[in-house]
Amino acid sequence: MTLSVAVLGASGFAGAELLRILEGHPSMGVIAASASAQVGRPVADAYPALESVAKLQFCSVEEALDAGAELIFSSLPHTASMKLFADKDDAKIVDLAGDFRLDEADRYVQWYGEAHANPGSLAAWQYGLTEFERQAVAGADKVANPGCYPTAALLALLPLIHAGAIDAGTIHVDAKSGISGAGRAGGEGFDYSSVNESLAPYSVTGHKHIAEMEEQISSAAGKAVRITFVPHLVPMTRGILATCIADAVGDVDGDSLHDVLARSYKDEPFIRVLGPDQLPKTKRLSGTNDAEVCVRVDVRTGRVIAFAAIDNLVKGAAGQAVQNANLMCGLPETAGLHLNPCLP
Amino acid sequence: MTLSVAVLGASGFAGAELLRILEGHPSMGVIAASASAQVGRPVADAYPALESVAKLQFCSVEEALDAGAELIFSSLPHTASMKLFADKDDAKIVDLAGDFRLDEADRYVQWYGEAHANPGSLAAWQYGLTEFERQAVAGADKVANPGCYPTAALLALLPLIHAGAIDAGTIHVDAKSGISGAGRAGGEGFDYSSVNESLAPYSVTGHKHIAEMEEQISSAAGKAVRITFVPHLVPMTRGILATCIADAVGDVDGDSLHDVLARSYKDEPFIRVLGPDQLPKTKRLSGTNDAEVCVRVDVRTGRVIAFAAIDNLVKGAAGQAVQNANLMCGLPETAGLHLNPCLP
Amino acid sequence: MTLSVAVLGASGFAGAELLRILEGHPSMGVIAASASAQVGRPVADAYPALESVAKLQFCSVEEALDAGAELIFSSLPHTASMKLFADKDDAKIVDLAGDFRLDEADRYVQWYGEAHANPGSLAAWQYGLTEFERQAVAGADKVANPGCYPTAALLALLPLIHAGAIDAGTIHVDAKSGISGAGRAGGEGFDYSSVNESLAPYSVTGHKHIAEMEEQISSAAGKAVRITFVPHLVPMTRGILATCIADAVGDVDGDSLHDVLARSYKDEPFIRVLGPDQLPKTKRLSGTNDAEVCVRVDVRTGRVIAFAAIDNLVKGAAGQAVQNANLMCGLPETAGLHLNPCLP
Amino acid sequence: MTLSVAVLGASGFAGAELLRILEGHPSMGVIAASASAQVGRPVADAYPALESVAKLQFCSVEEALDAGAELIFSSLPHTASMKLFADKDDAKIVDLAGDFRLDEADRYVQWYGEAHANPGSLAAWQYGLTEFERQAVAGADKVANPGCYPTAALLALLPLIHAGAIDAGTIHVDAKSGISGAGRAGGEGFDYSSVNESLAPYSVTGHKHIAEMEEQISSAAGKAVRITFVPHLVPMTRGILATCIADAVGDVDGDSLHDVLARSYKDEPFIRVLGPDQLPKTKRLSGTNDAEVCVRVDVRTGRVIAFAAIDNLVKGAAGQAVQNANLMCGLPETAGLHLNPCLP
Repeated sequence: MTLSVAVLGASGFAGAELLRILEGHPSMGVIAASASAQVGRPVADAYPALESVAKLQFCSVEEALDAGAELIFSSLPHTASMKLFADKDDAKIVDLAGDFRLDEADRYVQWYGEAHANPGSLAAWQYGLTEFERQAVAGADKVANPGCYPTAALLALLPLIHAGAIDAGTIHVDAKSGISGAGRAGGEGFDYSSVNESLAPYSVTGHKHIAEMEEQISSAAGKAVRITFVPHLVPMTRGILATCIADAVGDVDGDSLHDVLARSYKDEPFIRVLGPDQLPKTKRLSGTNDAEVCVRVDVRTGRVIAFAAIDNLVKGAAGQAVQNANLMCGLPETAGLHLNPCLP
Repeated sequence: MTLSVAVLGASGFAGAELLRILEGHPSMGVIAASASAQVGRPVADAYPALESVAKLQFCSVEEALDAGAELIFSSLPHTASMKLFADKDDAKIVDLAGDFRLDEADRYVQWYGEAHANPGSLAAWQYGLTEFERQAVAGADKVANPGCYPTAALLALLPLIHAGAIDAGTIHVDAKSGISGAGRAGGEGFDYSSVNESLAPYSVTGHKHIAEMEEQISSAAGKAVRITFVPHLVPMTRGILATCIADAVGDVDGDSLHDVLARSYKDEPFIRVLGPDQLPKTKRLSGTNDAEVCVRVDVRTGRVIAFAAIDNLVKGAAGQAVQNANLMCGLPETAGLHLNPCLP
Repeated sequence: MTLSVAVLGASGFAGAELLRILEGHPSMGVIAASASAQVGRPVADAYPALESVAKLQFCSVEEALDAGAELIFSSLPHTASMKLFADKDDAKIVDLAGDFRLDEADRYVQWYGEAHANPGSLAAWQYGLTEFERQAVAGADKVANPGCYPTAALLALLPLIHAGAIDAGTIHVDAKSGISGAGRAGGEGFDYSSVNESLAPYSVTGHKHIAEMEEQISSAAGKAVRITFVPHLVPMTRGILATCIADAVGDVDGDSLHDVLARSYKDEPFIRVLGPDQLPKTKRLSGTNDAEVCVRVDVRTGRVIAFAAIDNLVKGAAGQAVQNANLMCGLPETAGLHLNPCLP
Repeated sequence: MTLSVAVLGASGFAGAELLRILEGHPSMGVIAASASAQVGRPVADAYPALESVAKLQFCSVEEALDAGAELIFSSLPHTASMKLFADKDDAKIVDLAGDFRLDEADRYVQWYGEAHANPGSLAAWQYGLTEFERQAVAGADKVANPGCYPTAALLALLPLIHAGAIDAGTIHVDAKSGISGAGRAGGEGFDYSSVNESLAPYSVTGHKHIAEMEEQISSAAGKAVRITFVPHLVPMTRGILATCIADAVGDVDGDSLHDVLARSYKDEPFIRVLGPDQLPKTKRLSGTNDAEVCVRVDVRTGRVIAFAAIDNLVKGAAGQAVQNANLMCGLPETAGLHLNPCLP
């Protein structure tokens, strides 16, 4: 039996990844793919390799919502889905935007620049960092898929916070992302020649993902904390590396913290905990739903350095969305997600 | 039932691709992987994402040959396998080097710089450009997998030669390859900083693949022809684009030649014939066994321009090798080869 | 004494290069820089490193034309300058667009898609491939700067045509360009993530530069010829490599043709003729006004292969424009053009 | 009058930059260039664009030392020069390695893995972060040129430490470098295909440059401090971005800290202090001796974030070496260093 699926925002990068992954999914079939600016265009023009959607045409968001899909993935831009899903109760939904990730509605004004259109609906959405919300996701009908940066940072940090090994109030996350994180419509300054050979920080102290990370970290720490977050764009297409620093609590060493990560993730199909002689490399994750995490202790300064690398479009977006949908629909969590990286 | 497979040269780029593809193959299982310089090292160190080989260690070529595999893929460097497979009759073999691609042994001295070690064995090997040798490959025990450049050039040219649409004696192939074509051990001048932002021709008039293309084109044309071949290295990891020019024969136009390609490839699972408003892009093929081919007529000069793009490591190496092995072993030709490109 | 200079189209890539080069020019000073979409914005915002224009603001084209400059460089888009310079006789002008490159006005309809706005003015403009038009340029007030592809192709081909070594009627030019050739406003499909790791042909059989090359080659050959030209975009920022093939005339060999190039360019400050053990590399030319040219004979097929590499934005645009302007203004030809490449 | 110069290690990346910069230097002339593995090879083979060294051949280190140069730049690998310059008193020397950067000899064992060969000589060497050591450098005969990472980090941090605006004991530097920082002989894993599209940390908690930064920061802070330093390799050729975090001291805001930087660098020819609406971009610095610095206050967490970007091979190596040599030799500090970036 094949679950019928609609993909909203199918012409964007995350949408493209959803279609790529669903092409190989044994139990899901795409019946509608929306792309507002390309309504009527054959999907095959954009993705000629994908046979499962070869006969579809891009449709409007409304048509996709009315197509009768049992499962909806929405990769529309921020603030679109908060208006769209108020009364949509006849399908399971995974939303890849930030619209339902926060618990407290009033944070939206501060971080997203506008008030939440449906503050009352927030409670109905489950945050979907799968490894830490597995059971809740399995029971949810509406899942807010985590942001790409929070996915990386939280995978590195949460086990250490749970173990009491770091002081959550001292966390700084220095994150680096490939350019695809800016989306297809990157706009001026995102043409190849301007980006190539250039590295730069952006949105310093004001990135939307701060609110999401702080909610999750505060919840794990059992107290309200604030973090410093500095994102950077790196001249490569895919990949995120989060370098997370915090003060150690008590007398920790590298081996014991490695054990914390190893124990926390020992049964996880998508998390690879690296040992003391390895460090993450984004290329090894490219195109996959995997994450590489590891931890070091800077004994000279008493700080803990935890790393996580992911593919921002897969574990940081479309892959984790499918992982969540698998759970929501009672399918094996890894269905459709046996994705191996091209090396080189 | 799972076929047991040995991969020789598993630490090189083509070897890595073989392991990646075999990881997802429903009917093949790798039991040995050789890497001379890394004997004893866990394969998982090099390819941590591949579960199917997680328990193997790299072994020597000899151990791999003696492992009892029913099927052997060899991605050893040129001139290694010609010495190795003389008496190896207890397994099917696909050789990815140039050692058994030519019909005439004396061409090896000219193009490979040394005499063929086993000239008498050449007749036992079937050339494996699958789309044009399907039946012969299906009946063969030993297949010489085509070179990456010949695969691209021949896919663009052979249908046009068969149709009598171009004068095979006037062919010029201008080919462009990603850097992975130079292999992992590219050596001096292949470090990132020296290659990045640099485009250059190489091996002008003397590339080994000329002999292979000339044999195949001559055979298709029914007369001995010589071609001009100019390869270039492009600062990207994967992909080959072959731009092939030849004089038109008679009164051809773009539509009729497109029809020639479309007819020739209409049932091919891996060949995409592009229409008059499309041109090949290597990125759409990356990581896949697909090829994009198309043709234009320059009516002002009476020349035909045929293009083919592939991933040099997949359709140009490991993917086509698996495609051939599928046929040799009575499996579906596309088994394990439903590979979709990451876009972007 | 400093010549006053206006740069039209100063926010584009060629305009940026003009400002960079003029910054180091001993005898020219920029007094106006137009950028229609940024009128009033400080030039320093866009180019903070350039002290010589630090006090300017971008102005309109009209203001720049009226600024009283003795010398004007125009890097406006195609078809803009043909309307602009009809009566502009109080300044020397170097136009970097295609508007005045062709001798025959009726070719504009065919290749540029619209009729020439001032066909009568074409005769007043001198084509500026400096190495072959030095004296005429020195005496000209209006110079049409060559296209980037024609610059590369003609530098490779003209000496061989003049020497009677190749049959000009058989020329095929396979050209590869970095993405900056598409300009800053590359538009959809030119974002970093879509371009990176992708190689593709474009404008096959229909590129505007064909007309320009054919005029020049026909003139050199003394007969009307047509060429096949296939341009490609390569995932790198700068650089053009033109691979030019033609049938040899008579009994030529590599040494004699190398001598043809070496003799032709022996006193040229910007042309490096490479010997038999070298091939051009775009990176060695990056940021410079230099060209690398070389020639090979494919004795097996009787074809000659001539290469030229340049930086498309320098020798292919802004650098050659300054080189021409130097001659027009009685300055040393190399003034301001001692530009050395960054390696790596 | 032209100063005679010898360059040791002229085939490496920093050596190549020295030759490129010296080519345009009005008062220095290279008379010897050593490259151990290429003794006797014409320098023009490696750097065909450089006319000033066109007649030289690479020589041995010994020959270069004995060539009678008045000024020596050494870009030999770490631990080579500590053995070489013990008794070299007949020339001014700028050493680009780490051998003479530390004040305390016993730190060499810890960070460089071997004891200093000439601990007594350390006192004779002046640390050369030009902007902060101008007078001392001007009076020195022997200058230890700063490391690339310390140059970036210290330019961002020192003014803030001097102003008492940050707690030097809380500094964390997250640094990102282009691949050229690994040198030409990067070795295995540094081939283009392995590096491209991959981002990774390295030498976490153990990078040699930590010692150098701690000495300088401690000196500025007036107390011994330790820092956390995490370097990363980014898939681009050139550029370093240092993202530096520290706790604010007292009640600081972004404007006041920007003023601290602006005042500190107001007369500096190579330092660009960016305002509140700008952030550094490595590409704008490429090929130049410039640095871009700026500062932000994360008022929510009370942390200060200071950035500096440089070209690792220029301000981080060869350019600063020439800047120092200019001072040592009584020349204008900017001589030969009017280098403008190629954009794009």
